Amino acid sequence: MTVQRVNLFRNGGKEHLELLGGKGAHLAEMTKTGLPVPPGFTITTDVCRSFYSTGCQLPAGLMDEAMKALTELEKEQRRTFGSPQHPLLVSVRSGSVTSMPGMMDTVLNLGLNDETVEGLAQLTNNRRFAYDCYRRFIQMYGSVVCHIENIHFERILQKEKNQSAYADDGQLSEESLAAIVQHFKRMFEQKTGKPFPQDVREQLQRAIEAVFLSWSSPRAKIYRQVHHIPDHQGTAVNVQAMVFGNMGETSGTGVLFTRNPSTGERVMFGEYLMNAQGEDVVGGTRTPSPIAELERAMPHVYEELSLSAIQLEQHYKDMQDIEFTIENGKLFLLQTRNAKRNAKAALKVAADFVNEGLITKEEALMRIDVQHLNHLLHRSLQVDDDHVVLAAGLPASPGAACGQVVFEADKADEWKRAGKQVILVRMETTPEDIHGVIAAEGILTLRGGMTSHAAVVARGMGKPCICGCEVLNLDEEQEQLISGNIVIQEGDWLTIDGGSGKAYPGKMELKEADISPELLLILQWADEIRSMKVMANADSPLDARKAREFGAEGIGLCRTEHMFLSPTRVPIVQQMILADKETDRQLALDRLLPMQRCDFEEMFEEMDGCPVTIRLLDPPLHEFLPNAEELAERQNSLHSDEAADTDRQELERMIRRVRELQETNPMLGQRGCRLGIMFPEIYEMQIEAIFKAALCCIRKGVTVLPHVMIPLVGHVNELHLLRKLVDEVAEQVLGEERRNCPYKVGTMIEVPRAALTAGDIARSADFFSFGTNDLTQMTFGYSRDDAEGKFLTHYIENKLLPNNPFQVLDTDGVGKLIEMAVIQGRSRNPMLTTSICGEHGGDLESIMFCQRIGLDYLSCSPYRLPVTRIAAAQAHIRMQWERQLQEAAV
Amino acid sequence: MTVQRVNLFRNGGKEHLELLGGKGAHLAEMTKTGLPVPPGFTITTDVCRSFYSTGCQLPAGLMDEAMKALTELEKEQRRTFGSPQHPLLVSVRSGSVTSMPGMMDTVLNLGLNDETVEGLAQLTNNRRFAYDCYRRFIQMYGSVVCHIENIHFERILQKEKNQSAYADDGQLSEESLAAIVQHFKRMFEQKTGKPFPQDVREQLQRAIEAVFLSWSSPRAKIYRQVHHIPDHQGTAVNVQAMVFGNMGETSGTGVLFTRNPSTGERVMFGEYLMNAQGEDVVGGTRTPSPIAELERAMPHVYEELSLSAIQLEQHYKDMQDIEFTIENGKLFLLQTRNAKRNAKAALKVAADFVNEGLITKEEALMRIDVQHLNHLLHRSLQVDDDHVVLAAGLPASPGAACGQVVFEADKADEWKRAGKQVILVRMETTPEDIHGVIAAEGILTLRGGMTSHAAVVARGMGKPCICGCEVLNLDEEQEQLISGNIVIQEGDWLTIDGGSGKAYPGKMELKEADISPELLLILQWADEIRSMKVMANADSPLDARKAREFGAEGIGLCRTEHMFLSPTRVPIVQQMILADKETDRQLALDRLLPMQRCDFEEMFEEMDGCPVTIRLLDPPLHEFLPNAEELAERQNSLHSDEAADTDRQELERMIRRVRELQETNPMLGQRGCRLGIMFPEIYEMQIEAIFKAALCCIRKGVTVLPHVMIPLVGHVNELHLLRKLVDEVAEQVLGEERRNCPYKVGTMIEVPRAALTAGDIARSADFFSFGTNDLTQMTFGYSRDDAEGKFLTHYIENKLLPNNPFQVLDTDGVGKLIEMAVIQGRSRNPMLTTSICGEHGGDLESIMFCQRIGLDYLSCSPYRLPVTRIAAAQAHIRMQWERQLQEAAV
Repeated sequence: MTVQRVNLFRNGGKEHLELLGGKGAHLAEMTKTGLPVPPGFTITTDVCRSFYSTGCQLPAGLMDEAMKALTELEKEQRRTFGSPQHPLLVSVRSGSVTSMPGMMDTVLNLGLNDETVEGLAQLTNNRRFAYDCYRRFIQMYGSVVCHIENIHFERILQKEKNQSAYADDGQLSEESLAAIVQHFKRMFEQKTGKPFPQDVREQLQRAIEAVFLSWSSPRAKIYRQVHHIPDHQGTAVNVQAMVFGNMGETSGTGVLFTRNPSTGERVMFGEYLMNAQGEDVVGGTRTPSPIAELERAMPHVYEELSLSAIQLEQHYKDMQDIEFTIENGKLFLLQTRNAKRNAKAALKVAADFVNEGLITKEEALMRIDVQHLNHLLHRSLQVDDDHVVLAAGLPASPGAACGQVVFEADKADEWKRAGKQVILVRMETTPEDIHGVIAAEGILTLRGGMTSHAAVVARGMGKPCICGCEVLNLDEEQEQLISGNIVIQEGDWLTIDGGSGKAYPGKMELKEADISPELLLILQWADEIRSMKVMANADSPLDARKAREFGAEGIGLCRTEHMFLSPTRVPIVQQMILADKETDRQLALDRLLPMQRCDFEEMFEEMDGCPVTIRLLDPPLHEFLPNAEELAERQNSLHSDEAADTDRQELERMIRRVRELQETNPMLGQRGCRLGIMFPEIYEMQIEAIFKAALCCIRKGVTVLPHVMIPLVGHVNELHLLRKLVDEVAEQVLGEERRNCPYKVGTMIEVPRAALTAGDIARSADFFSFGTNDLTQMTFGYSRDDAEGKFLTHYIENKLLPNNPFQVLDTDGVGKLIEMAVIQGRSRNPMLTTSICGEHGGDLESIMFCQRIGLDYLSCSPYRLPVTRIAAAQAHIRMQWERQLQEAAV
Repeated sequence: MTVQRVNLFRNGGKEHLELLGGKGAHLAEMTKTGLPVPPGFTITTDVCRSFYSTGCQLPAGLMDEAMKALTELEKEQRRTFGSPQHPLLVSVRSGSVTSMPGMMDTVLNLGLNDETVEGLAQLTNNRRFAYDCYRRFIQMYGSVVCHIENIHFERILQKEKNQSAYADDGQLSEESLAAIVQHFKRMFEQKTGKPFPQDVREQLQRAIEAVFLSWSSPRAKIYRQVHHIPDHQGTAVNVQAMVFGNMGETSGTGVLFTRNPSTGERVMFGEYLMNAQGEDVVGGTRTPSPIAELERAMPHVYEELSLSAIQLEQHYKDMQDIEFTIENGKLFLLQTRNAKRNAKAALKVAADFVNEGLITKEEALMRIDVQHLNHLLHRSLQVDDDHVVLAAGLPASPGAACGQVVFEADKADEWKRAGKQVILVRMETTPEDIHGVIAAEGILTLRGGMTSHAAVVARGMGKPCICGCEVLNLDEEQEQLISGNIVIQEGDWLTIDGGSGKAYPGKMELKEADISPELLLILQWADEIRSMKVMANADSPLDARKAREFGAEGIGLCRTEHMFLSPTRVPIVQQMILADKETDRQLALDRLLPMQRCDFEEMFEEMDGCPVTIRLLDPPLHEFLPNAEELAERQNSLHSDEAADTDRQELERMIRRVRELQETNPMLGQRGCRLGIMFPEIYEMQIEAIFKAALCCIRKGVTVLPHVMIPLVGHVNELHLLRKLVDEVAEQVLGEERRNCPYKVGTMIEVPRAALTAGDIARSADFFSFGTNDLTQMTFGYSRDDAEGKFLTHYIENKLLPNNPFQVLDTDGVGKLIEMAVIQGRSRNPMLTTSICGEHGGDLESIMFCQRIGLDYLSCSPYRLPVTRIAAAQAHIRMQWERQLQEAAV
């Protein structure tokens, strides 16, 4: 059915959303469904566009059409627009396609004038009501159509209230209201130079024009800009017969959620106010009653409302948010829309709807907002808007934590042992602080970005962390943290929210993570449906256990360097790095070997039967050494202490080595496989540890699937050389058992050149894992540490970039490289498996991209797994739906 | 004509190079041309491959075929192989396809035994000669075929010489030689267990086998590895009738260049030795005579040799290097090949050959080795191998320089004013050292790579520079430079060669650059032929003048930051950077504006009618500030001096700002257009300066073509935004004159993402300039400063990479990006011009790639222009030839 430009509700429907706007489409839908909706019509968004294209003129003939449509309303309501006897009143409301709550204008009670008000009084036998409507109408019309500031109306109202000593509008007497109407009209004439219009057609025309004009009001324009709503979308105008909630004690108005929007429980939820119109509920001078009370007060209305709620849920297959009015005991529905709900409720509603047979599992999954899920998976804060914020930094690792501030890792460890909860605050953390990070509830650093040491370690541990909190000052000597006039000292309580990046002084209440049965059920559905596998980034046996708990089908990335970071190991790693001779380095490596072997063994056991992807050492060696400044300080303090010669020599050696290893751009320096090629003994040790661990496990009956990943390959020769090393060591260690250890060798594609020459590289690779963090850094030429909080923030705020490319994969640039690499890689090696293991592995849009280009699996941090499992299912469903649409189109 | 596996010279030719080897092919060619070549035949490389594939066996029947071919030699020489009366002697020589001088074996005088030696004596009536031949044969056969060490032969020879008190082999008497033969034979039998073979067929077979076997001798294998000669190429064997230069005083042997290989002059050049065989010339116990003397000694032979030389030059259309032997006054040619020559000679020969009508201009151009040209364009050193080298670093800017060492820029400036030549030696240079760099003859730094400040500035000025000379120790307090036990103090002389990266203690003689008329002529030809334009990277009016002199057709890259580096400007730039408020920054910018305007004005005038591409500020701001360490030192010294409070405050402010600007990876930080977006006032000033300069020039009647280049664009939005700024400022400044100033706006493509999204970017760009230095860094993920001298050197030495990608464009990876960008860019904007302005703009292979993908122009440093002009012509010719070949094949 085609839509007229003035379209009666009964001729519309939700499929015409773009012409009728949200409100109009759903009013039409409800009308067709037979629900009690006051009759009305919609003037379409086409008319709005036409209005603006002709210099704010309504199209010729439109008012005639509107008046004609009104006669239909008149018939149905048995009243006549402008009739002094049986006056029909209407509401004129905006109705945009995308919801823009409160942004646009509405006029109620239109059709009243000095004559019809008397007619209304007689008709309802309620003169007080009629004048109440009239004074409301004059105020709304005056402010919306004629732009008279509301304060002028409020002053008159207040004066009258003061004179009659009423606190509440509802208590105003018939006489007072009539007096107010007279005052309003006088003031109206003063302000506009014309008397208040008595011609109801003129009233209607000017109200329609005013609603269209409100589309270009400054607040509406700004709202559209912020929410990316195109200007040409336009608004529709709904003209609807008035029903009155303010007609007395059997009338009222209210809002209803078909289920509880906080818990998702299948119980009607909402509130209502008797003898009131819509704006009174919002106004807040009277306290509304909970909807349950309506059952006692007006059982029949309640019954009808309940049935309508069920009918609407079944019709829309979603939880609804309904506006209703009761006029003299009769129920009318004035609006319905899909209800907003919190994450927990969303899960329960989705699960319940499936169980009730209303929607499919696929539909339920598609309704989950994965961004919201994060709140459920971590401890969270409930913060008022006016809570004092100490500072805001980068949201480096989600979740909330609360503890007493300490400024040193040792102290953190010590206090934790003493049973205290601590928050570790540091300028920046180094590997030497690791025991402090482990001991702390959460971490806050003043420097460093989303990939700084603290951030990476904290995310791996699922521990809340804020980084780059540069607005704070840390006075290390005085041991205090300063923000404006707030001073935090050691032992003071601090609460941090790693999801928002905000820190709050004092101890705040935390909400525990909430893994409900519904979440588990939905995760199970996601696993049934999705086609991409989901693995975890896990760097320790503990991580591996967590990963398995959260549903990982293997480990997609084990960063072996994190295994070097425990306080007992760091000194040996440093010894290895400081070694001047290869034999000395070998000695240190010999000590590290059994430690790594032991880690791998536990991880293999934990992941029995699942692949474990182990990335060989990646970061530049200087990351394991103290930084130059710190060493210089140590050296200065040595001088005064007249320390032993050996200490001094050792320190000088370390300083020399740190200097040697210093790089101008460490991101582009001697790291990844470049390290493995320059110091083959390091990789050899790691490979030996992997296969020795595998051998042990095989003998214990564990099924071992090691995937050895060579990082930062840029030229096939690098991979070729190191693959040979893996094969040789595997042969030596495993011998006969090789056939029970179907290991793979692959590479991380994280350098643009690797993606560009993926065809060549695939010849030596069993798998590609896209390291999208580094790939994004190099493809954009952004150092994440330097960009975030500096120009990148400005870029995103000013729309120079659509998104932060470290959070949402840049499909145009980085994605193009990935797609090229997948196509070329598979064409040269059809057995190649492909995956993504950067932080994008947990982002919905990015996962959709991975699905589209056909990656085999995603890998993300254990705590992100539930989100990723659902997102992967959503991506699969979206692809299927798109395909179906395409097929239908052909 | 097909080639037999045993192929007589008269049946061969140079077109069969791969089967006959170089020597064989050219002997055949000379034979066919009618030149006096002793008859012979070639056993092909096919036989060599067969020999190795059957476990070092000659193919069945081969020796019969060889003996049959010998009968042809016998007929021609009227002698018989093995005949006691008229013995035919032959030489057996290797002849590989690619020249491998001295790597493989030769046996001369084969066919002698106890009987034939007597026959030879009678035939030549020269018994001494016959025995001289025999003893030479036994020694050669013994060592080459039977691997008897030469020392055993030399001992016997020496003993005989001692007994007869002869110093020289040539003085040995007939009796002595006969005695030596007896001693040799006895020793031979002792060493091999068998008597010296008397069967001449056996001699021939074993000599042929020995030559084939020498293909796999260790030295030959290593040579092939180093020179990338494939093993399967194999060697041919040439068997040729002996002619004797050692038959008396009318016999001799020599080597002839058809022109002077040092100067290219058209004068025969070479030397000869009478009564000698080839090895005597090489042996060096007798001094050969210059070829000119032959004219007096044997005018007829000289005449014939001259004519042969001319004939061979005309035949081969190139200068030849000829071996000849005179036997009893008769001339024989034993080898010819294209002669090696130095760069100067190569130019003259090429030009002369064109003028003589022997070759076309295209052929002449293709013969220029552009690598060699560099020597002519810069001052150079002539260094003996045993000259003491102080140290070797990175060859950062070519050319040689010599001066007294200073360690501070101020001192360099001061000494230069006092009329001294200085070499500036620094740990590393900063912008504050610029006056020292200007004053110095050359620069040596201990730290920093090929893109360090010193390197970039020196290359721009055409000044010799060595960087990253890490083997040296700089004792800054003692002001001395230490390398092992050599100590260089201030004022000591030092000579550096920026082309080799070597530094030498003391004052050495320099050879001036040599721009000959022939070079100018060939450059003119290159300009006529090439299709790509050649522009210059020029950062100052002085550079621009130089560029025009060297034939630039415009400026392809003016790095405006270099204009900020003069000592008078750096403080203002620092003031601009240190400004806390925008107004303070504007004050500094207002002072910089007229300076920039003035530079641009002079450059536009210099380039009247040619495009001037100006890149807006690119490097991170901290590059204009002193480094943190230095500032800390200054601060320390302030403490002790109790300096004024204002000084201290100023310093503290600077330290704070330096800290703020510090970046983890400055290469990937806030630079390029990111800077221009964050501080639009800086770009605005630069754009204003450009158009104000343009306006002045237009009014003076200069034709101005400014191309404004936005650096480091990664997303089209960046370019879009800044292009708007350019247009706005142009409109403001130029007003009506806009139509006389057809400016363009484009970008440097140096971030992988820019290349990947080139289609989008081209919508806002008039031109793309590929900044291949940065593009290579980001595509590989190599920081040049960190990679070179570290893992990159190892990679190249170990063939992990075929080339240094900063010198030779990586066509597989970086090139793929460039090609994609050109194709996508042009498809969206057909008017787009494309160019390359990295250091690759001067490399032949890279230029060939640019030609292939159809770039519009190349841009390189002024001093590199001549090389680039020739290389561009070569690329054009090569493309044409390839196209002709393809068309011929179709």
